[in-house]
Order: sequence, then structure tokens, then C-alpha cells
Amino acid sequence: MGMKTGIAPSAPMTCVFVGAGNLATRLACALQRCGCVVAGVCSRTLSSAQRLAGLLGCKAVERPEELPPAQMCFFSVKDDALPGLARRMKDWQPAAVFVHTAGSVSLDVFAETGHACGVLYPMQTFSREREVDFRRIPCFVEASDEATLGRISVWATCLSDSVIPLDSRRRRYLHVAAVFANNFTNHCCELAGELMCQAGLQPEWLLPLIDETAAKLHDMPARQAQTGPAVRYDREVLSRQRELVAQVSSRMAEIYDLMSESIHRQTEEK
Amino acid sequence: MGMKTGIAPSAPMTCVFVGAGNLATRLACALQRCGCVVAGVCSRTLSSAQRLAGLLGCKAVERPEELPPAQMCFFSVKDDALPGLARRMKDWQPAAVFVHTAGSVSLDVFAETGHACGVLYPMQTFSREREVDFRRIPCFVEASDEATLGRISVWATCLSDSVIPLDSRRRRYLHVAAVFANNFTNHCCELAGELMCQAGLQPEWLLPLIDETAAKLHDMPARQAQTGPAVRYDREVLSRQRELVAQVSSRMAEIYDLMSESIHRQTEEK
Repeated sequence: MGMKTGIAPSAPMTCVFVGAGNLATRLACALQRCGCVVAGVCSRTLSSAQRLAGLLGCKAVERPEELPPAQMCFFSVKDDALPGLARRMKDWQPAAVFVHTAGSVSLDVFAETGHACGVLYPMQTFSREREVDFRRIPCFVEASDEATLGRISVWATCLSDSVIPLDSRRRRYLHVAAVFANNFTNHCCELAGELMCQAGLQPEWLLPLIDETAAKLHDMPARQAQTGPAVRYDREVLSRQRELVAQVSSRMAEIYDLMSESIHRQTEEK
Repeated sequence: MGMKTGIAPSAPMTCVFVGAGNLATRLACALQRCGCVVAGVCSRTLSSAQRLAGLLGCKAVERPEELPPAQMCFFSVKDDALPGLARRMKDWQPAAVFVHTAGSVSLDVFAETGHACGVLYPMQTFSREREVDFRRIPCFVEASDEATLGRISVWATCLSDSVIPLDSRRRRYLHVAAVFANNFTNHCCELAGELMCQAGLQPEWLLPLIDETAAKLHDMPARQAQTGPAVRYDREVLSRQRELVAQVSSRMAEIYDLMSESIHRQTEEK
């Protein structure tokens, strides 16, 4: 990956996207900004394909077989849909490199297609409407062979300042870590917002706390950053809070118990 | 609270601190910067009192009774310790306003002391060594009477741009919301870091994701910001991830199940 970051590779590249969801949208737009030609977008929901194709100024289709020829085909679909799709695309454009963007799916998913193949997994939470700075997103790459790894890495390096080769086995850990660090933290914030609303309080008042929670982790490990009743093991507070949460929702109370216990146990292991 | 923010009240004030933990440290330093005279710090652990007193240039004592006279006495101790401490301090400095800083403790804790009393709860996660911008921290205030509320609010307004009067009942919700938004999110990040280490990956790679999780919440509600396998209900991914997590820790697997189920159910309620 000896190329300068942020500079488009000298040879132009044409790619197509199967999938038009959050990740596909942000990745396709970022690749286009790097000088990559996105020639077509496919989605089972034609309106999704049309929305993304509208942003890119390219063709929208409903079936992948209708996509124009390309050097690289990105598969950004629901992880569970990938194996079936790979089987179906076996004989399509044999010279194209097949690349998927799923954290939890092995490169092997393409094994039987016979295509040169790889993975480009940008570890970030994407929403269609929200622009993100791709340069800061760690992109994890893997490929069936060195030449393909080089081709994918060239584009990844054009997108991001951190391109890290990683095999499928370790990427599974990465993906589940991302689930804890994003999906679960976000859900805790959602529940916090519900508790605020329950008492007629503005959920926005939580934002400085949420910002500081993230900012602190640049300074110290999470274990050291931990504060609050569970890490202090304030039994009275824990039992009163538990009671209050149970009045709002029994599921939230279960989460309260399990998380508090887990924090307390981690502290004891210190 | 008609005063200009950031300007110290014209009458000087002398205060003392019972407690020298994270919150006491950051609050006492911030008050001193606002022009408040912090005359003494007390902690059962004398070395803690000395550390904070060293920062402030004041007296450190082990027993609250040894503190110099003051107009305001801040109690920043473990929540569970507050009732016993309030009883013990009943006859101490009858003219001083007693103020506690605990999210989960009612103002009533001071009822039997006969002192004018109040609460100043800055909703933030504090660590001794980490400076925070107090101006951005929402401070929730309550007092036994209007005059005392005014006196506390004057200092709170000097510390922060958001000073919000809030009764004890609603502050309990606020505090448990803060536990979800900070303690639990931070713990999820800790577990994410453990999963990274498990696979020999750098926990720092999670930071852009964690930053974006927080940043996104300024743009959209948490429910709308949610991404990942649970909200998409990718059953295959969920079961494979569950299996992987269980190999690392059964407690982590319990958290994985409960959080994923909770995310999925919230989505269905949409």
C-alpha cells in the first residue's frame, strides 16, 4: 500500500453496487469522490436503488444480472442474504472482482463463484442521510490473492487513513466488538432517553454526558473511566434505582441488573 | 437567575467540601475558578483530602467537625454515606447552607438537620485527573426555600450555561438515565475492547465508531440511529455472534442476548 493517501489510483475503475442501504450509500458516494466510476446500483427495492443511483448519477436496476459490466462488484446486502446471492451470481462477469462489505461474513462466501474476491469492511455506523468523514474510518481488507488485495487496498487507501489487512476469523471478533461499542451503547442511550421522557425531562440534556463518555475513552481505558453506583457498589442506590426502572419496564430492569452486576464483577477483578 | 453567566457573584462566598472524590475535585476546582473561596476539604481518607486541598491551596482534615466555618458546605460523598453524615452534622455551623451533589439522594436527607439546604447535581462523569468544561454540563438545582435556591443558582450559573431547577423525585429518573447513558455505554465499550484484545486487535480502532455513535445523537434520535444485526434481525449473524461471544465469557453472552432482544423488540414497536 505504498501509495499516497487521498489520491485516486491512476487507472480509472468502474464498479457496481448490489445493495443500496446505509453502508452502500456512504461507500458508493465516497468511492465516487475518489474518482471511481460507479456504473450501476441494484436493489430488490427499486426505489432504494433509484435513490442511490440519483445521488451518483448512474443506472438503477432491480436484478443484479441487469447491472452494466464493471471491474469491481460491491455486495452490500443484509449479511444473511449474501450466501444465496453469491451462488446466484456465480457465472456473472467472470473478470469482475467480487467484494463484500459485511463484518461478520467470511471471504469463503465467494469461494464457489470462482471470482477473484475480497472484503472491504469500513467499521462505522452509517445512516443514509448522515455524511461521515471516511478518512477517519478504519477499513479492514482481505482478498483471495495478493493482486486482488492490492487492488482493493488501493481504493481503501484512497478512502481512509487506516487500512488494515485482516482475515475473516479475526474480523468476526471485530464485528461483534463493534456491536457492543455502537449498537449496544446506542441502545443504552435510547433507554436513557425513555427514562428522561418518563419524568418529563428533555433527552437532549444527556448529550454532554454522552459526548464526554466518548471523549474520555481517548484519554483512558474504559475500566478506568467507569463511574457511578455499580462501580462504587452503592447497594442502596442500586436497589432504589432498580425499583424505579422496574416501574418503567421489566426488560429495562433486567438490563439494569445484568449491566450493574457485570460492572461490579469487572471492578472486583481489577 | 437573572445574572450574567460566567461572572462571579459580587458577594464573596466561602465554602467547604466534605468528600474529595472525582465530583468533589472537579466541582471544587470549578467553583474556585468562579471566585468562590474553598476554605477546607474533608475526607475519611486524609491523603485524598490532602490531594484536593493541595490543588486548591486550602486546609485538609479527616473529620468534618474540623472544617473551618463556611457559608456553604458541599457534601460530595458516596450516596449511601449521606444519611449518616447528615445526622452527624446536625448541630454543625447552623448558619451554613448544606448542599449535596448526589443524583439519587432526596433533598429530605437534610430535613432533620434544620439547616437551609439544597442540591447541586452536575450531570456528568468525572475523573479526578480529567479536566471538563463545566460550562457545558447541565446542573440541576433544588433547595429548601426560594432564598437558598437563589444562592445555589447564582453559583451554579457561574459554573454552567444550563442550570435547571428540578425536584428530588424527577432527579431520580435523571440519575438512572445518566447511568444508562454513561455507566452502561462505557461498560459496553469496555467489553468491546476485551473482544478486540481477544483477537489481538487494537481497542483504539473502536474510537472513531464510538465518537460517531455519540455525534450521531446530536442529529437524530437513538432509535433512528440504530444499525447492526439486531435491528435488521439478521438471525444467522445473531446466532453466530452469540456463539463467538459465549466462547469469551458467559456473562458477555447474556448481555449480548438481552441487548439484542431489547433492540429487536423496540424496532417492532416502531
